[in-house]
Amino acid sequence: MIDLNSDLGEGFGIWRLGDDAALLDVVTSANVACGFHAGDPSTMRRVCGQAAERGVAVGAQVSYRDLAGFGRRFIDADPAELADEVLYQVGALDACARAAGTRVSYVKPHGALYNATVHHDAQAEAVVNGVKAFGDLPVLGLPGSRLLHHAARAGLRAVREAFADRAYTPEGTLVPRTRPGAVLSSTEAVLDQVLRLARHGELVAVTGETIATEVDSICLHGDTPGAVEHARSVRKALLEAGVRLGRFVVE
Amino acid sequence: MIDLNSDLGEGFGIWRLGDDAALLDVVTSANVACGFHAGDPSTMRRVCGQAAERGVAVGAQVSYRDLAGFGRRFIDADPAELADEVLYQVGALDACARAAGTRVSYVKPHGALYNATVHHDAQAEAVVNGVKAFGDLPVLGLPGSRLLHHAARAGLRAVREAFADRAYTPEGTLVPRTRPGAVLSSTEAVLDQVLRLARHGELVAVTGETIATEVDSICLHGDTPGAVEHARSVRKALLEAGVRLGRFVVE
Amino acid sequence: MIDLNSDLGEGFGIWRLGDDAALLDVVTSANVACGFHAGDPSTMRRVCGQAAERGVAVGAQVSYRDLAGFGRRFIDADPAELADEVLYQVGALDACARAAGTRVSYVKPHGALYNATVHHDAQAEAVVNGVKAFGDLPVLGLPGSRLLHHAARAGLRAVREAFADRAYTPEGTLVPRTRPGAVLSSTEAVLDQVLRLARHGELVAVTGETIATEVDSICLHGDTPGAVEHARSVRKALLEAGVRLGRFVVE
Amino acid sequence: MIDLNSDLGEGFGIWRLGDDAALLDVVTSANVACGFHAGDPSTMRRVCGQAAERGVAVGAQVSYRDLAGFGRRFIDADPAELADEVLYQVGALDACARAAGTRVSYVKPHGALYNATVHHDAQAEAVVNGVKAFGDLPVLGLPGSRLLHHAARAGLRAVREAFADRAYTPEGTLVPRTRPGAVLSSTEAVLDQVLRLARHGELVAVTGETIATEVDSICLHGDTPGAVEHARSVRKALLEAGVRLGRFVVE
Repeated sequence: MIDLNSDLGEGFGIWRLGDDAALLDVVTSANVACGFHAGDPSTMRRVCGQAAERGVAVGAQVSYRDLAGFGRRFIDADPAELADEVLYQVGALDACARAAGTRVSYVKPHGALYNATVHHDAQAEAVVNGVKAFGDLPVLGLPGSRLLHHAARAGLRAVREAFADRAYTPEGTLVPRTRPGAVLSSTEAVLDQVLRLARHGELVAVTGETIATEVDSICLHGDTPGAVEHARSVRKALLEAGVRLGRFVVE
Repeated sequence: MIDLNSDLGEGFGIWRLGDDAALLDVVTSANVACGFHAGDPSTMRRVCGQAAERGVAVGAQVSYRDLAGFGRRFIDADPAELADEVLYQVGALDACARAAGTRVSYVKPHGALYNATVHHDAQAEAVVNGVKAFGDLPVLGLPGSRLLHHAARAGLRAVREAFADRAYTPEGTLVPRTRPGAVLSSTEAVLDQVLRLARHGELVAVTGETIATEVDSICLHGDTPGAVEHARSVRKALLEAGVRLGRFVVE
Repeated sequence: MIDLNSDLGEGFGIWRLGDDAALLDVVTSANVACGFHAGDPSTMRRVCGQAAERGVAVGAQVSYRDLAGFGRRFIDADPAELADEVLYQVGALDACARAAGTRVSYVKPHGALYNATVHHDAQAEAVVNGVKAFGDLPVLGLPGSRLLHHAARAGLRAVREAFADRAYTPEGTLVPRTRPGAVLSSTEAVLDQVLRLARHGELVAVTGETIATEVDSICLHGDTPGAVEHARSVRKALLEAGVRLGRFVVE
Repeated sequence: MIDLNSDLGEGFGIWRLGDDAALLDVVTSANVACGFHAGDPSTMRRVCGQAAERGVAVGAQVSYRDLAGFGRRFIDADPAELADEVLYQVGALDACARAAGTRVSYVKPHGALYNATVHHDAQAEAVVNGVKAFGDLPVLGLPGSRLLHHAARAGLRAVREAFADRAYTPEGTLVPRTRPGAVLSSTEAVLDQVLRLARHGELVAVTGETIATEVDSICLHGDTPGAVEHARSVRKALLEAGVRLGRFVVE
C-alpha cells in the first residue's frame, strides 16, 4: 500500500493555482497551504472540506512567511521564531480542518523550507519543535533528511516520500533542478518510477543503477502543465498494477 | 466579582506596544492579538505563557487583516470570508496558547471590527459564525451590540464589558471619540466609574444621569500614556473597596 | 478618436491574472497595478516594457493596501494616509516605467477605491492630493464622480471613461452588479454600446432611453472569461467603423 | 569634512522606532526606510520633510521584503527580482521626497541585505542594477564590499562608511556581533574612534594595531538605548575638534 500526496490550496485571495478538486480525486493526502506562502482562510477551509468529503488526509504545508516569493526562497530565520511560525500555521489550519469535519494529521514543509531542512540542522530541529509544540503529528519529508532525523528523535513518526517526476542520483538524492534531466517529463518515465517505488521499493538512478528506496508516500506535483493528467495516469497505473492506495495516517 | 481585560501582545516583529508583563499583573483576562492587526507567533506564544503563569485567561483578539492600519479602519469584508478569518486567527492563537499551557477561552473583536459589529449585522453574525466554527467560546463585547445579540442567539455566552476610561451617553452608548470629554483623563474619574460599575452596576452619563449597566468585565486600555499606572490604580481601588477580581471564564 | 484602457499587471509573485501581452495589443492605455492590490516590482517593470514597445500609455492603477481582498473591499482609510499611499504607488510605478523607457502618464483608482471615490468626497480629494503631490497627471474616472470633480478643481485633466460591458441607468450611472443585466454578456451588445459611445457620444440605458455620454476612454475588462476575445472584437469593430484609436495622453 | 548618516523612518503604521526628529538634528544624511522592512508612506513623507527642513540628504534605505523580520534575515532572492525591488523602493521614496521638497540622493542597503552584499556577488550586482535602473545615484556601503565594487564598475559613486560604535579586526572588517566586544559601549571609545576616523582616516583594531581607513561617512545607530545622546556627543566632539560636518552629496 502506498500514499499519494500533493500540494493543494495554493491560491491566495483572487488568485488560483492548480486544480484542487481534480487532484483531490487522485491523492490520499493533501498538503494544504497555511497562509504563509499561499492559502487564505476561505481557501483553507474549502480545501479541507473537499478533502474530508473524499477521505483524503489533511496535512499542514508549512512555509517561511513569503507570499511574494511563494515560499521558494531560503530565509535565514531564527530557529525559535521559525518553530513558533510552524506552530501558528498548524494551529490555523487545524481550526479550518476541524470546522470542515477533519483535522490536521501530519506536517510537511513547503518549498525552500523543505529544501533547507534536508541539510540545515537548526531549521530542521525548529520545524520539528514547532510540530511537537502543537502535538505528536507525523512529519513528511525526504529520506535521510535532517528533518526526518529530528522528527524521529523527538518521537514523531518520520514519513518518507519520493517524487514521481524527479530524477535521482546513485546516492538516492534528487538531481538538482539546475541539471538537465532533473525532472522526468515523459508520462512513461513517471509511471515506471512510480510503479518501481510502490511495488519494489526501488528507483533507477540517472546513471542506470537500481537503488533501494523504501518510501511511505509519493509526491505528485500539482502546479505543472498537465499536472492533473499526470496524476490521474499515476493513480490508474498503480491501481491496475494491484497496488493499494491509502493515506499513511489513520484518523 | 468583576473581570478586568486589556489588549495585549500588540507588537509585531521588532516593534513593541505597551508593557505586556506589567498589565498581566493587573488584569484577569488578556485579549491577545492574533497576527492580523498585530502579534507575531513568538509574541503570541510568549504572552500566552506569561498569562498562564499568572492564571490570566487568554482571549483571541481577532481583527480585520490590516497591519498597516492596526485594524483600526473599517473594511467592508465579505461575511463568509470574515468568518473564516476569525476561525483562522482563533486557531492560530489556540495553538500558541496550548503550547504555553493554557488555551483560548474567549473571543473579542479588535478596533474597527469591534466598532463595526456594534451595528453591522452581517459582520457581527460573521464573527459569531467564525467563533462557532471553532467551538462554543464566550464572546466579549458591548452590551446591546449586534455582536452580543448574535452570540447569544448562537448559544454562545455573551460577555458584556464597559470601558474604564470612556464617557457614556444617557442611552448607555459611548460618547464618540470625536466629541470633547469622550475619554476620561483624570485618574479620579476613572476610579469613580470603575467602582460604580463593579459595586453598583451603574454609570454616570456625561449628562449627569445615573444609568444601570450590568457588566461582566471592565476594559483597561494598555497603549495610552500612563496606561500601566492607571491600570494599577484601578486594580488597587477595586481590591480596597472589597470587590473580588476574577476571570469570567473558568478553565 | 477614442482611447481604450484596461487593467493590467494584476498578478503577484507566482500568481497570474489575465493575459497582459494579448490585451496590450488591443488597448491604447494600460492601467498597471502598483503592488497594493496586485503587482510585484518585476511584473510592473515587465508590463511597462511591453506597453512601451507598443506605444501604449502607462497609468498608475492605485489601490487600497489589500492584497488579500484584491483591492475590492472599501477601507475607511484616513484621507491624509490615503494620499500618501497614492503618492507612494505612483512613484514606485514611475520608477519601473522609466526603467522600461516610458513613464506614468495618468492615474486611475482600482476596484473599491474607484467605486468609493465616485461619492466619497474625502477619499476622492485624497486621491487627487496624492496625484498632485507627484505631479500634474491626468486622472481617469467616471463622469460625474467626486474624483473627477476634485481632479478638475485641482487643475488636473479629468479624463472620462465608460465601460464597454456594463449596463447604464437613465441617469447615466452604472446598474449595480447585484442587479440582473448589470453586465452585458453578449458580444453584440458590447459592440453596439462601444460603437455608439465612440461615434455618437451616447448610450442606450437599460430602460431604452438614449443618453448623451461624452467620454475620452472606454474601459475593457481583462479578467473575465473570454476577455481577450471580447477586447479584440471591440478593437476590430471600432477600426472597421472608421473610429481612430489613440491614447488620451501624449508623451 | 565628514558625513554622518543614520537609519530613520523605521516605524510602521502605529509602531515607532527611534526618535527621527532628534537624530535629524545630528546627522547630515538620513537613510529612510522604504516600506519593505519598515516605513509606511506617511512616515516616509514626513521624515523626508523633516530632512528637507534641516538640509539633511535623503537616501533610500532599501531592504528585502520582510516586515516581520525587519529586513534582518538573509533571503535568497532572485537577483533580477531583487534589482526590481530596489528600483520600486527608490522610486516610491523619491516620490515622497519630491513631495516634501527634496529628492533621493543616494542608496544604502539595510540590515541583512547590507551584510549579504559585502560578499554575495550576485545580490551586490543586483542592488547596483536596481539603483542604476533608477538613475546614477551614489551607493553607500562598506569599504571593500562587493556592493561598492559593483557600484564603481557601473559608474556610480561608491561612498565608503565606517561605524561609530563597532569594533574592527586588523584586516579592517567588522568584528562579528557574536563575538564579545563587537559593539563599543562606552561613549569614550565611540568618540575616540569617530575622531580618529574623521581627522586621521584611521582606526584602532581590537588587537591594538592602527589601520588606515579612508571613509566618506560615519554611521550612527538610531535604535539602541541612548542612541540620541551618543549621536549628539559624537556631533559635538567632531565640531569641537574642528571637523566640518557635511553631506557627501550636493543637490
